[in-house]
Amino acid sequence: MPKISTRGHIMPESPIRKLVPYSEKAKERGINVYHLNIGQPDISTPQVALDAVKNNTVEILSYSRSEGSEEYRKKIAGYYKQHNIHVSSDEILVTTGASEALRFMLSSITNPGDEIIIPEPFYANYIGFSTSNSVKIIPVLSNIDDNFALPDISDFEKLITPKTKAILICNPANPTGYLYSKEEIHTLVKIVKKHDLFLISDEVYREFVYDDEKHYSILSDEFNLGDNAILLDSVSKRYSMCGARIGYLVSRNKDVLKTVLKFSQTRLSPPTYAQIASEAALETPQLFFDNVISEFQERRNTLITELQKIKGVKVSRPKGAFYCVVELPIDDSDKFAQYLLEEFSDDNETIMVAPASGFYSTKGLGKNQIRIAYVLKKEDLIRSVQLLKLALTKYNQQ
Amino acid sequence: MPKISTRGHIMPESPIRKLVPYSEKAKERGINVYHLNIGQPDISTPQVALDAVKNNTVEILSYSRSEGSEEYRKKIAGYYKQHNIHVSSDEILVTTGASEALRFMLSSITNPGDEIIIPEPFYANYIGFSTSNSVKIIPVLSNIDDNFALPDISDFEKLITPKTKAILICNPANPTGYLYSKEEIHTLVKIVKKHDLFLISDEVYREFVYDDEKHYSILSDEFNLGDNAILLDSVSKRYSMCGARIGYLVSRNKDVLKTVLKFSQTRLSPPTYAQIASEAALETPQLFFDNVISEFQERRNTLITELQKIKGVKVSRPKGAFYCVVELPIDDSDKFAQYLLEEFSDDNETIMVAPASGFYSTKGLGKNQIRIAYVLKKEDLIRSVQLLKLALTKYNQQ
Ligand SMILES: Cc1ncc(COP(=O)(O)O)c(C=O)c1O
Ligand SMILES: Cc1ncc(COP(=O)(O)O)c(C=O)c1O
Repeated sequence: MPKISTRGHIMPESPIRKLVPYSEKAKERGINVYHLNIGQPDISTPQVALDAVKNNTVEILSYSRSEGSEEYRKKIAGYYKQHNIHVSSDEILVTTGASEALRFMLSSITNPGDEIIIPEPFYANYIGFSTSNSVKIIPVLSNIDDNFALPDISDFEKLITPKTKAILICNPANPTGYLYSKEEIHTLVKIVKKHDLFLISDEVYREFVYDDEKHYSILSDEFNLGDNAILLDSVSKRYSMCGARIGYLVSRNKDVLKTVLKFSQTRLSPPTYAQIASEAALETPQLFFDNVISEFQERRNTLITELQKIKGVKVSRPKGAFYCVVELPIDDSDKFAQYLLEEFSDDNETIMVAPASGFYSTKGLGKNQIRIAYVLKKEDLIRSVQLLKLALTKYNQQ
Repeated sequence: MPKISTRGHIMPESPIRKLVPYSEKAKERGINVYHLNIGQPDISTPQVALDAVKNNTVEILSYSRSEGSEEYRKKIAGYYKQHNIHVSSDEILVTTGASEALRFMLSSITNPGDEIIIPEPFYANYIGFSTSNSVKIIPVLSNIDDNFALPDISDFEKLITPKTKAILICNPANPTGYLYSKEEIHTLVKIVKKHDLFLISDEVYREFVYDDEKHYSILSDEFNLGDNAILLDSVSKRYSMCGARIGYLVSRNKDVLKTVLKFSQTRLSPPTYAQIASEAALETPQLFFDNVISEFQERRNTLITELQKIKGVKVSRPKGAFYCVVELPIDDSDKFAQYLLEEFSDDNETIMVAPASGFYSTKGLGKNQIRIAYVLKKEDLIRSVQLLKLALTKYNQQ
């Protein structure tokens, strides 16, 4: 039998999706599972986007342009302008989710064996995109004790080698909820300019920012970053339309745009219905976002307050996105997550969480941490934390 | 300025899409361009698929399962059963077009530097997928003079090295329209079993077969091919819904399925609206296909008849798909294709064709060939061939 590839072997299973069989079995046993494990908001998609698809007049569902339609990209440029980012439609490529933008971007800037520095913990799929591009992730550790702030500039500089191609940040971050300050972005800009690296910023949560804090994009006018900057974005979270599969890559670097376009041409075009929905979503009234942000902020407050009541539990205070990393008094969060689904229940209910080890590339880290996505209503979050507390006691008494 | 990657540099531009700026300029000059260059049928998408999207009841456009919904995959298995292919829903993975299936499949079975043998000429994007996976294409030449039939078994065997991972065929083929016979598939099955290789069959045109010929899938019962076989498929052409972006990978090889699923998990899920359309498309009445096939068969007949009237033009007789390779009395089809758009016109009309060099990996081959897609109505095809004839005369008089 012919063998699969080495990169196929070492590709990680999704740390989140690998628990799905256990949750399905729990449900078969009649157990109600609170899903704190996935970044899938429970918010309704804006009506204007849903309606655009329902009222579409497509008769021949044709390939679109590989880079997305001119009209749509012009409107996206308009969106960025409102956010202090001045780019033309030519500097935007529409992709099949930020996922595809990440993959094509890495293929375009790295050779097999090249290195990318990423503050750790980070979005688990960065490992998959790197593996499939034969790129090495060089993690730089951020810490729960200082809320996962940017590590010291010297921590970055000592990791830079001739193989280093880029620094990749996620802002606000999944899984930490960390929001980078203006000074931190300035620091990163300084490093990449000095060492001639790309600065890649995954901003799919760019509007999920709380406590009236401000989000600083690497493409904002004040940083004046040209060829070094690559921005990744998505409609998935912003408009609660994860199933559309539309994202964008934004850059002022003509070589990057030209090269990513060549990769984009091999897959012909992004999905047409999803582009119809996404273009219409740009007309979503501001009230929608105001409501969503205040809802998530309240959820975060509730979640943090409840978690802090549990002895031995440490939690960072996320300033953005809708996740937090929680440190638990346990030996192994993979085992614990499985225990929650296989053995524990209270009043026929349990919770599903994401073990944090999948968000670290450093072996052994995150073993006493989980990621919680606060994508549920407040009362459900309160009940979930209650279940977590009960489960911790029982698990540690075993 | 940080540099882009070597693989990014060597990625080919789409041989078809690179001419687009010239056709746009021609249109700006008021010229009517007949598009013989792209595999985008002019057939209306089945009403049942269009309606399913218009009547969808989605409220939260969520991620779906990475492998596609269970229900949809069961229905796909039903489709294959009608075509003498017995697979379970677990042996099918839904992807974002056959394009994505091709990319993930190559990532799953090849290491950088591995080799894949492909009868040449072949679908141009195989070069892109191979380049982005750092895989080497080893072409085996098929010939216009014998209608692009499968080369001798000895031609394959002398190309096999320890680095060879697979033989990839497209059946029926883009760009040649070649349809493999039962005996040819048997031959390929023998080779891959003997040398422990994968046999990959791109069957996105599997139903576009003319003259009452029969299509033989590598997964058909009669070949009894288990772990060695990987089938790639798509809704794009079958239901004239290229813009959906839904395809599938089908295999009985558990390792291949498990590995491709890991790559699929990194991009979360295929597009949701497109899955709604594609699932509904399976209910398309047989009459739709009968009409489409007889329409394409007539177009092919018209095109071939007209082309054969031009002196110095050689054309193969395609038995499937909707393309043919045409050999012209010219020096360089890239130049000629550009000439057609930039300089030639008759009564304010011209044609756009795909230069065939992009369908060959062997340097220098295909330089006097073009690919014509017969995706236009008969009268337009007749006029197109008339334009081709006029242009050839003028081009060669320059
Ligand atoms: C940080 C981050 N980047 C990228 C993605 C992928 O988003 P998309 O749905 O646009 O592919 C996600 C999805 O959860 C994410 O959390
Ligand atoms: C031979 C072949 N394979 C694959 C594809 C890609 O199809 P899809 O639209 O499913 O990505 C095409 C599209 O033209 C093709 O001709």
